[in-house]
Amino acid sequence: MRRSIVNDPGDLVPEALEGLVLSHPRLLALQETHRLVTRRERARDKVGLVSGGGSGHEPLHAGFVGRGMLDVAVSGAVFASPTALQVLEGTKAADAGRGVVQIVKNYTGDVLNFRIAGEISGDDAIETEIVLVDDDLATDTGDERGPGRRGTAATVVVEKVCGAAAEEGADLQQVAAVGRRVASAARTMSLALEAGTHPGDSAPQFTLGEDEVELGVGIHGERAARRVPFRDADALTDLLLDPLLAELGLARGDQVLAIVNGLGSAYPLELQLVARRLHHRLADAGIAIDRSLVGSYVTSLDMHGVSLTLVPLDDELRRLWDAPVRTPALTW
Amino acid sequence: MRRSIVNDPGDLVPEALEGLVLSHPRLLALQETHRLVTRRERARDKVGLVSGGGSGHEPLHAGFVGRGMLDVAVSGAVFASPTALQVLEGTKAADAGRGVVQIVKNYTGDVLNFRIAGEISGDDAIETEIVLVDDDLATDTGDERGPGRRGTAATVVVEKVCGAAAEEGADLQQVAAVGRRVASAARTMSLALEAGTHPGDSAPQFTLGEDEVELGVGIHGERAARRVPFRDADALTDLLLDPLLAELGLARGDQVLAIVNGLGSAYPLELQLVARRLHHRLADAGIAIDRSLVGSYVTSLDMHGVSLTLVPLDDELRRLWDAPVRTPALTW
Repeated sequence: MRRSIVNDPGDLVPEALEGLVLSHPRLLALQETHRLVTRRERARDKVGLVSGGGSGHEPLHAGFVGRGMLDVAVSGAVFASPTALQVLEGTKAADAGRGVVQIVKNYTGDVLNFRIAGEISGDDAIETEIVLVDDDLATDTGDERGPGRRGTAATVVVEKVCGAAAEEGADLQQVAAVGRRVASAARTMSLALEAGTHPGDSAPQFTLGEDEVELGVGIHGERAARRVPFRDADALTDLLLDPLLAELGLARGDQVLAIVNGLGSAYPLELQLVARRLHHRLADAGIAIDRSLVGSYVTSLDMHGVSLTLVPLDDELRRLWDAPVRTPALTW
Repeated sequence: MRRSIVNDPGDLVPEALEGLVLSHPRLLALQETHRLVTRRERARDKVGLVSGGGSGHEPLHAGFVGRGMLDVAVSGAVFASPTALQVLEGTKAADAGRGVVQIVKNYTGDVLNFRIAGEISGDDAIETEIVLVDDDLATDTGDERGPGRRGTAATVVVEKVCGAAAEEGADLQQVAAVGRRVASAARTMSLALEAGTHPGDSAPQFTLGEDEVELGVGIHGERAARRVPFRDADALTDLLLDPLLAELGLARGDQVLAIVNGLGSAYPLELQLVARRLHHRLADAGIAIDRSLVGSYVTSLDMHGVSLTLVPLDDELRRLWDAPVRTPALTW
């Protein structure tokens, strides 16, 4: 039996957004009608950045609004895309006269609504470019007519490097290009020991046996193709890492950015064990983890699980990653 | 049934510390023998700050090592005090010639071992001062002969303001004094919907009925005096806030620092709802939330619960809180 700290579940998203913005009065502002979280001070003379999607993945996306990352985040209901109208208003709010990059995780509803909004915003003379994030290796079927890979934790890296490029004064095409470069290079693998539970529900989205692990689970609780036996932290990490290494074809001397991401109720000790194994494995392979994040950044309500993201790094990406950022969830 | 991402549970703490330090190579270093996490670059010519306690409360304490906060964190086993020898070595490692402030949560084992270490470190001509953190209002029995209030999330504030004072060049007595001032003014209340589970165990520390909430739970899963009916987010927040307001005697025009702290598996949407209610209630009372933190900073493994900490603010505390800090878990 699961319970949530929630009022009317139908009010969850607007109430939570209000709580977020009240907690960051110097960074954020709220546009209630369309559930937009914006920077407190609108940026000037830079490419705008808008992202968004269903709620339940916090701190993504509203937690990444601020200097050096997003201008606007658009929130749908839990695990449901925002409407095209919301995205349109978000795109307008992000525009500072130099066009807007829309960062979109690859899910049918999100892609559709961002595309529609992008087209309509042309009526207001706002140029837009979509950067599609599709890093989830577990959904790589190789079928080009299919929905393609899902978008997961690489979104944080795309938002960060696009944000830095925009602050530096890059133009619309340049900001979109660097985001696409990250998206095309990044891959993620996830696993869950326990599904998340929708606020107000008492049962998780699915249940696993005592000896089972969902390998390749999605951030909306999408089931995976494989269910594998439970094992220890090192072996669980290997389950994520082996397919990533095979896919990315990294070689001795390469450098990567790694994200060890908790999916909701994984706690720091668990993430630190995954990070440890990752460091040992890549050190043995002669691959440098040049930058990393370890924490819960792209979640699935209270899912007990972890994802691992690797992004090959070069000098430009490292510089953009290291650039100053000031948001509720990422600051340096 | 609960499971953890863990190898041999007996190796959990050293492995997790290794993972933390590997993930922050520019900030942290590890002294394995005594399970000390230190700054990568030892600070010079300032009062040293050491804290520590049982593990399972991450990011406390090791996540707060870095410029502007701790010099050294000492880790015991899960929910078990570090030994006096560990604390002694941690105190030595924190010393830069101007004495060491030991920040100690009020638990019998911690207090005992830090006291012993403080006395022995005198043999090495290291002056020490203990700042005892005892903010947990649920354990305020008014009995001066008892163990007193437990130490919980106010520890973050004590570590932050002492850290800032030490960086500013304050002397040992001054750093200790400002920490004691925070500790004596801060109060915290906690509740849990579900207990945490020890890594390697399959059952949580205690179970609650569907309609029950543990009000006043401790960060080691200590049971509370009161078990109250489950209710919605606003009403749960009021259960925490009402006794805090009664105890602190805040008046219209006062300013506070507030921490809405997740105890492990509370997820951001839940914390944002608590923050929202808190802001509304204090706005109604004419009390300004001048600074706040909303996140999981002092946890109890994967406990599903939340704590609320209020600290009355004045100009000095606000300045010390705002001073730059660069640690894994707190950076600005």
